Amino acid sequence: MSEADVAVVGAGLAGLVAARELRAAGASVAVLEARDRVGGRTLNEPLGDGQVVEVGGQWLGPTQDRIAALAREVGVDTFSTHVTGARLIEFDGRLRRYTGRIPRIGPAVLADVQQAMLKLDRLARRVPLDAPWEAPRAEHLDSQTLWSWMRRNVYTRGGRALLELATEAVWAAEPAEISLLHILFYIHSAGRFEVLLETEGGAQQDRFVGGSQLVSLRMAEELGDAVELSAPVRRIEHSSDGVLVVADGGEIRARRAIVAIPPPLCGRIAYDPPLPGYRDQLTQRMPQGSVIKCMAVYDAPFWRDEGLSGEATSDAGPAKLTFDNTPPSGSPGVLVGFLEGARARQYGRFTPAQRREAVLKGFARLFGDRAGRPDRFIERAWADEEWSRGCYGCYMPPGGWTQFGQALRTPIGPIHVWSGYMDGAVQSGQRAASEVLSALGSAVVPTG
Amino acid sequence: MSEADVAVVGAGLAGLVAARELRAAGASVAVLEARDRVGGRTLNEPLGDGQVVEVGGQWLGPTQDRIAALAREVGVDTFSTHVTGARLIEFDGRLRRYTGRIPRIGPAVLADVQQAMLKLDRLARRVPLDAPWEAPRAEHLDSQTLWSWMRRNVYTRGGRALLELATEAVWAAEPAEISLLHILFYIHSAGRFEVLLETEGGAQQDRFVGGSQLVSLRMAEELGDAVELSAPVRRIEHSSDGVLVVADGGEIRARRAIVAIPPPLCGRIAYDPPLPGYRDQLTQRMPQGSVIKCMAVYDAPFWRDEGLSGEATSDAGPAKLTFDNTPPSGSPGVLVGFLEGARARQYGRFTPAQRREAVLKGFARLFGDRAGRPDRFIERAWADEEWSRGCYGCYMPPGGWTQFGQALRTPIGPIHVWSGYMDGAVQSGQRAASEVLSALGSAVVPTG
Repeated sequence: MSEADVAVVGAGLAGLVAARELRAAGASVAVLEARDRVGGRTLNEPLGDGQVVEVGGQWLGPTQDRIAALAREVGVDTFSTHVTGARLIEFDGRLRRYTGRIPRIGPAVLADVQQAMLKLDRLARRVPLDAPWEAPRAEHLDSQTLWSWMRRNVYTRGGRALLELATEAVWAAEPAEISLLHILFYIHSAGRFEVLLETEGGAQQDRFVGGSQLVSLRMAEELGDAVELSAPVRRIEHSSDGVLVVADGGEIRARRAIVAIPPPLCGRIAYDPPLPGYRDQLTQRMPQGSVIKCMAVYDAPFWRDEGLSGEATSDAGPAKLTFDNTPPSGSPGVLVGFLEGARARQYGRFTPAQRREAVLKGFARLFGDRAGRPDRFIERAWADEEWSRGCYGCYMPPGGWTQFGQALRTPIGPIHVWSGYMDGAVQSGQRAASEVLSALGSAVVPTG
Repeated sequence: MSEADVAVVGAGLAGLVAARELRAAGASVAVLEARDRVGGRTLNEPLGDGQVVEVGGQWLGPTQDRIAALAREVGVDTFSTHVTGARLIEFDGRLRRYTGRIPRIGPAVLADVQQAMLKLDRLARRVPLDAPWEAPRAEHLDSQTLWSWMRRNVYTRGGRALLELATEAVWAAEPAEISLLHILFYIHSAGRFEVLLETEGGAQQDRFVGGSQLVSLRMAEELGDAVELSAPVRRIEHSSDGVLVVADGGEIRARRAIVAIPPPLCGRIAYDPPLPGYRDQLTQRMPQGSVIKCMAVYDAPFWRDEGLSGEATSDAGPAKLTFDNTPPSGSPGVLVGFLEGARARQYGRFTPAQRREAVLKGFARLFGDRAGRPDRFIERAWADEEWSRGCYGCYMPPGGWTQFGQALRTPIGPIHVWSGYMDGAVQSGQRAASEVLSALGSAVVPTG
């Protein structure tokens, strides 16, 4: 049993940031992490020679100032995602190269996608980031899926296929599953839909030298003994006197607790007294998306020699999106592909060998036979991870924001700007720390 | 530490039925129940003089043959819900009496509701109960909310209000939250939508003498020491050798385990090895509905003297539906009202005194001043209950059946006919027992 001013549950980005800020403000902290490592949904995989790729979150983009500032503070540099060269699009059975942002597909489909994204961007601007349920016609927007909206507002089959692909890429779920209001809230947090999809100027613009997990590793190093690994929290007893956080192998008594884990996992901790029903039912209604991230490692990024950037979109998949994920040194060559939403669920039930074969077949179709014969294949199915249970983040199904949104705000309001991105995690950690410091909240302060 | 052939998690109806059937077939069982009582979402509340009302599930209807047979076997009689007298409908600010099934509201609204329910009934017949995702156009039906369907197929404002009320009454959630495919699956399981709503000839037709929990209490009596109360299961270790079920205060080693608790709570047990991602993600996507059941107890059912049945529908609420819930002896008089869906969430955040006042004000508007002055007021907010976390049952949001339905079937396929009703619980317990007896399944067999 040990004591601290604040117990932090979870040593992902949000939890570590909260702990770091609290300590900087003079509070003592104890961070309990279920895994035997820090970083949550960021995780480096060594490639040898000190080089790494990330099997979890890896990118940062413009306006994500919090994660950028944090990286600078802990001495982690960034570099640009490789974008030189032509992109590929495989659509309706045809594979084409193009340069710039406009894929080579029929102009009717292109115009259709553009007008739909513009409409969404316009609607999104009216959704308050701190209270989506107060948007004009919030109930109307929250009572339908994105799929239903697309039926009325996207006119071509191709346009629908591309928007579905874009939805999977951002939310790791299908248009059928997500509330239109949630889509709009999320687009507003980024500014425009396209920003969420782009490399240059978008959410995939930059990468971390040494891998995104390095940011968490550095913070954990600073925090030293305050971070306890392999200590899954099972129970939180709380009263006006403070909290007792019970983990496998130890207990922390603290004045306050910050629960910095995804909402569905918040519901898996036992609370004494139990969470109010309204808050508990939220944890039954904010599911994590579904992603399997796959990487193929080659001796060199051979596609660059062929004038390709490594970025590809494919309606055939199974990885519908690929990027060049080569380390900044330029070697080895790494292609990354994502199985998202329906594909993640389907291929998640295959054996690793079956998945590898299917994904590499897709890579070979896009980048040639050589892409089908990597030196190494790395994959991570985030739904299988006991302490994440999905990726990239949680989304709201229809009715979620209007019926349960206020449960997220009480006692504090997290998951706002760039939620689901590392920047959002940093922000939520900062907010939790500041809330605790103001000693406003209740004894248990969930961030997620 | 004790041993059994089969460990059963949860002593609700499903778990007890499974245990009873297993024992009847010669297997030894151990039932671990988190609460200090059996019966799950059925719970008797004493009224004095040996009489009871139920604060949880209470009705059974035609075709629910399994629960009826079980009640007979354990010696629990049934009686008819009191329906003699006129019904009330409060709609658009007007309160009216009527007899028969057709409420006194405008013929255009009535016709609108009728045509919509007929359409739903017809669509429902094509949804296979054992595999809703194989319905014709399943993806189409599962990609939209019931709200979206109503926008296109219900033409009057009044018709929409009444269907919303009916939806809340059956699913304890809003049309905005539920997949159209789930609605159809559920209607098919009952035959027709109206059957779900009716007393005579419908799901609210009959009641249990001595209260519905008596069925579980009798089974628990038969099972004797095999039922362990106040033993919440925290972890299930499993391998080809069997299972180790770890509860507060004890462990059971068994050849197989049956997890007979609602899907969202299944996800809150720690499994070693962890559940596959596909199954875990289902538990993030089958939320419990939201209900607060309220009862007012009077010296006598005075409304009967005024020619009223006690059954009322109100668009003002907060209890939008009421019934006569007097014990079979005819005294004391009991009115029951339900806060469902949005109302349950809203009033769930009020104090008990505020709720009581609001509900009784509604009762008084419907049944006169005397209804506002009961001898006793009894309520139960099922979302607050740590070991239920909602009521009546779980529903599927859009995308649920088509993306995750097969996770429910693997290793076994429960929650089929009359799911959410006691009959469905009996069926799922029977199926789990039979599956375990055939020694087909894996070591851990979730029923919910």
